[in-house]
Parts: sequence; structure tokens; C-alpha cells
Amino acid sequence: MKDIIKALEWRYAVKKFDENASLTTQQIEKIKQAFNLSASSYGLQPYELFVIQNNGIQEQISVASHGQKQPAQAAAVLVFCIKTNFSESDIEQYFELIASQRQMPLETLDGYKNFMKGVFSQKTQEEIMSWASKQVYLAMGTVLSACASLEIDSCPMEGFNPEAVDHILDLKSKNLQSVLLMPIGKRSSDDAVSQLKKVRKSQDEIITEIL
Amino acid sequence: MKDIIKALEWRYAVKKFDENASLTTQQIEKIKQAFNLSASSYGLQPYELFVIQNNGIQEQISVASHGQKQPAQAAAVLVFCIKTNFSESDIEQYFELIASQRQMPLETLDGYKNFMKGVFSQKTQEEIMSWASKQVYLAMGTVLSACASLEIDSCPMEGFNPEAVDHILDLKSKNLQSVLLMPIGKRSSDDAVSQLKKVRKSQDEIITEIL
Repeated sequence: MKDIIKALEWRYAVKKFDENASLTTQQIEKIKQAFNLSASSYGLQPYELFVIQNNGIQEQISVASHGQKQPAQAAAVLVFCIKTNFSESDIEQYFELIASQRQMPLETLDGYKNFMKGVFSQKTQEEIMSWASKQVYLAMGTVLSACASLEIDSCPMEGFNPEAVDHILDLKSKNLQSVLLMPIGKRSSDDAVSQLKKVRKSQDEIITEIL
Repeated sequence: MKDIIKALEWRYAVKKFDENASLTTQQIEKIKQAFNLSASSYGLQPYELFVIQNNGIQEQISVASHGQKQPAQAAAVLVFCIKTNFSESDIEQYFELIASQRQMPLETLDGYKNFMKGVFSQKTQEEIMSWASKQVYLAMGTVLSACASLEIDSCPMEGFNPEAVDHILDLKSKNLQSVLLMPIGKRSSDDAVSQLKKVRKSQDEIITEIL
């Protein structure tokens, strides 16, 4: 694996994917692992991921992305979704998971569980969805970095019609809502954007060290 | 460097840092690079990072974090901030940066610049701050993954009083607002949490493959 900084320098938002490239089962597995290993608020993972390797559906997602071609061209499209019905029962299930995975009596976690329920009981449904959306961005940062490290090309995308993508994947019936897309695969050898210099502010402009 | 999946498995939200550990200049430099290399919406980087290696300020941030000890114990604290005055002039500056870094005439970018101005003119200040906050989560995902890859321990933190941290760092006068904290350094050898099994949902529960 590349040095992580070299990997992040190598990464760019692919404009044109190689339509003939595909991903191996092992690569898909690593992406799934990276998604599941992302940090999330309290560890609650209020999200789901769709991994789509289906030309017909990818074409539809491309149409739902203002006609941008990357979802159709790429080897796969990742769709990052939030749960729209996050509730106390998710918190209950989370603590059952902790108790089972760490082999602890559930009762020993009651204090923390009640604290967490108190935190969420004060949030509106809109605030909970905003909170969940932020966790999706964090997860995408993790998956994007993992892909760069694995030399898998990608294009993080906010610019699409979420309602249309929700409809394509029938997300509403699953109590999910699409938040971010990420076509992945291999950059086309004639993607002109790959030759352009990466544009970044100077570190001094956006980073302050306090000693 | 570790395999990225192994690195993400190695990572956990440190509960107790080694107070005697410090970070090298090279490690801090890589973290700064990772932050600046993160993807962001349109590449606009509507955020700033503070890298604090100062015991007194770290103590104050610890107090502002409901007394959680990690900010005081860690070798450094990263404070991820959004710009509170993002406006058309940021878009102007961004296109000047593209033109200068890619040695293109500024006029050739007019179409895209005007499109982007149109997009942001339709957003309220609150929507722009929500948008910027999401980019900070994405950047934290990048930095968190980079730290794991570099075997630097970390603790991503949402649970603090942003107004208090803004006051400590005098962020208001800089038109900034703190959104996330991330103490970094080395896990203490007696951090009991480091021995606990990582709790994650099963992949099948949160990931759907469509072929």
C-alpha cells in the first residue's frame, strides 16, 4: 500500500471512468469493511450503504445525477444512506450489540444507555437526520481514504436528485434516504482532469498551529 | 504503512492517552497535509484547522468538553472549524486559485464560477453553515483514516461546548466556529477500552449489494 499522503495526493474526483474496468470481489470486500469500520457518533452507525454493480441501475442513477456520466461509467456506485426512522429502538439494539459482542451483562450498560436516550429525546426528527447525515460524510471520508490507499479511483458526489435515487432503489420503503454517491473504479486513461494540478489553499491559510 | 483495513481495525476512540507521548514534526506535517488533501464540496474547503500543542489551552479545552480528559492528556488537539462568513468572495478567491495553480486565464472559468455563485445565492446562511459542517465531517474522516494509517492514536469528539472552545481560541473574531475536536497522540498502555472488542453491526445488516 502507498504512503497515505501519497495516496491522498493520487486521489482526485474522477471525471471520466474506464468503462471496461471492474473491481475484484476482494476490493469490494475491503470497501465494505472500510465503511463498517468508520467512526460514527457514539458508534451508532445510523446509516446504510448500497454497492451497485448493475449497468441498468447505474444508468438510472446517472440520469438522476443531472446526467453526469460517472455513475454509469464506473465499475460500481456506492450510495450512502441515512436511516429516516432512527429511534429509541436503535439505541436499545445498539446496547444489545455491545453486550453480546463484549460479553457483558446488558444491565451494566443501563446508565450509559439512559444517558444516550436522554440525549436523543431532546432532538427533533430533523436534527436527528442532520446528525445522521454528518455521520455519512464522516463515513465517506473513511471510504474515500481507503479507496485511495487501495488505488481504487472514485468520485464523491453531492450533486444528484436524492428523491430520484431513493425511488430507483426503493429506499423509502426501507426507511432510508440517499445522501451521497460515490462511483468507484478506474480513471480513464484519457480523463483530462487527471492531468490537472490539484487545487488547494496553502496550508498556512487554513491551518494554525498553537504551541 | 499498515494495510488500510488493518489500520482502521487498529483505530479506536481512545479513552486514555499517554500523557508523556509527543508527536514528531514530521507526524504533525503529515496530519496537516491530510487535512489539506481532503475532498470537499466543489473543492471549496470552507474550513480551517487548529493544531494545538499547548498544555494550558488543552486543559481549557478539556474543561469545555464536559471535563473529558482526552484533550488535556493527548499530545495535540485538532480543532476543526467552519468559516461563518462564507460568501461570494470565497468563490471569487477559489477561482483565482484555480487559475493561478493551473495557469489558466481566469475568464475561461467564468461559466463555472457563475454557476457556482448561482448555487450558493440560493442557500441561506444557515444552509451554508450546515453544508460547511458536513465538509468538516468529511475532512475528519480523512484525517482520522490518515492518523490510523500513520499509527497515530486519536479520539473523534462531538461532545463539547463549541461556544466555550470558540472563546478559548478567539474564533469569533476570525469568523470561525468550532465543529469537531480530535485529540491525537498515543493510547495509554492501561487504557482499558483498547482491549475491548470493536462493536460493529454485521456487514449484512447495513450493506446491500445489487448486482
